[in-house]
Amino acid sequence: MNTRRLVVSCALLVAGLLLAGSTLAAPPPRHARPLPPVFSLKNWRVVDLTQPLRLDMPIWPGDPAFEIEPWASYATDGYFINRISIGEHSGTHWGTPNTFIEGARSADQTPAKDLVAEAVVIEIRGTAAVDVDYRLTIDDVRAWEQEHGKIRPGSIVILFTGWQDKWDDPAQFLGLDENGVLHWPGFGADTVEFLVNERGIVGLGTDTHGADPGDDEEFGASFAMYAADGSILECLAGLDQLPPVGATLVIGGLPIEGGSGSPARVLAFLPPRPPHRPH
Amino acid sequence: MNTRRLVVSCALLVAGLLLAGSTLAAPPPRHARPLPPVFSLKNWRVVDLTQPLRLDMPIWPGDPAFEIEPWASYATDGYFINRISIGEHSGTHWGTPNTFIEGARSADQTPAKDLVAEAVVIEIRGTAAVDVDYRLTIDDVRAWEQEHGKIRPGSIVILFTGWQDKWDDPAQFLGLDENGVLHWPGFGADTVEFLVNERGIVGLGTDTHGADPGDDEEFGASFAMYAADGSILECLAGLDQLPPVGATLVIGGLPIEGGSGSPARVLAFLPPRPPHRPH
Repeated sequence: MNTRRLVVSCALLVAGLLLAGSTLAAPPPRHARPLPPVFSLKNWRVVDLTQPLRLDMPIWPGDPAFEIEPWASYATDGYFINRISIGEHSGTHWGTPNTFIEGARSADQTPAKDLVAEAVVIEIRGTAAVDVDYRLTIDDVRAWEQEHGKIRPGSIVILFTGWQDKWDDPAQFLGLDENGVLHWPGFGADTVEFLVNERGIVGLGTDTHGADPGDDEEFGASFAMYAADGSILECLAGLDQLPPVGATLVIGGLPIEGGSGSPARVLAFLPPRPPHRPH
Repeated sequence: MNTRRLVVSCALLVAGLLLAGSTLAAPPPRHARPLPPVFSLKNWRVVDLTQPLRLDMPIWPGDPAFEIEPWASYATDGYFINRISIGEHSGTHWGTPNTFIEGARSADQTPAKDLVAEAVVIEIRGTAAVDVDYRLTIDDVRAWEQEHGKIRPGSIVILFTGWQDKWDDPAQFLGLDENGVLHWPGFGADTVEFLVNERGIVGLGTDTHGADPGDDEEFGASFAMYAADGSILECLAGLDQLPPVGATLVIGGLPIEGGSGSPARVLAFLPPRPPHRPH
């Protein structure tokens, strides 16, 4: 850790000295000078956490079918667009508290600042491969914190189950059994209550189709998160490209009037210089 | 300008010295230490450039109607979601080159890095209020550059016409006249060719319903941008909150398979410390 801090210190010192030197020595150039890289978001690393929207993608049983209807054509109209029809919670999507709580915050009532949050990624691929109905426990969270540091207020906690790799196989992704029960790992309701009350998190994320385990028809984890005015991201992709801490999420959810959320482009940003990691 | 650079230099030097000092003197704290503010995107200012998606919003004549159909209900299902139906170029939206050029890049073929670009904002509200059919000229661009500096490669150039304030009045927003002709200001086709060939821009944006002036049925500006593999943002909002340069756009467009773009959440980010401005 000290070595890394020294490296960062030296980099800052060198940057400061170089900038000071050029300020004293060089005439001002005529046009826009480049900023230090960290000041343009274009220099940050962007990770796409969004699954492709395809006609044959997994759909929650009973939800609207995804339709792509060609509407204007090159031949007839000189240009091409589709009409799309989709459920608000299909594809990689973003859910708002009114999904479960009548009168609670809707998609269009969510300010832009709440679409930006630091990501915490808890990976359970090994456990989930053995127990598809696994529920993340408070002890799991504490074990993660031993390694990566205490979860900061304002974080969105993402469960990385490995389900993102099943997107092209809807039967595997949904895990529907002969009794009509869905199967995928999720958050325990008490774990979400702990994360809300003791850590001040503002959202959940997962690469499965629900923050609750597939076989949990009480939706306890979702209720706990929505009751705290949080947001929930589901069907995420690309989680293997995120560090446990240090990425910031940008949730490209649509401001549908009265909507329960929407299909969303979800991106994660990592600064040009890796952030300092706690023990 | 030199004063500002000296201030930045000193800040970097002080930050480096402080970090070096703490590295040598202090024991590592137990949990996550705060990062310098610039390293968490959560500390950046975010501006929402997205109009609300409402049933009565302006729709391009002939495009699909926007529908919000309640699908699941609290009473019957225990939760609430809608089915939505919408044209890919309705609401604040993002267009990809296959809109006009068959076989060109589609929504799902756009990598995440191309959803992030520096914004240049050219404001013409006064001119547009007098001439609703105004076309931005190359001379307008050169005059803007005299004041704000040369447009950098990789920028998205946004035309701020003031039309964002007409969103709640579709007749005013579309400007449809008795002959069925639309009216709003836009980019001249030669201006876009200049911006593409001489400045290396990667996209256009506007707060009207089209990058081309409403009465331009040749779509020359759009063709020029799409021919250069760029993207186009239309029906933007919040442009009054952006500086002429210094913001980075994040385009939350949906990766629809074969899509021509999509309704999109478009956000702009400004760093915690104002970026250096050119002469």
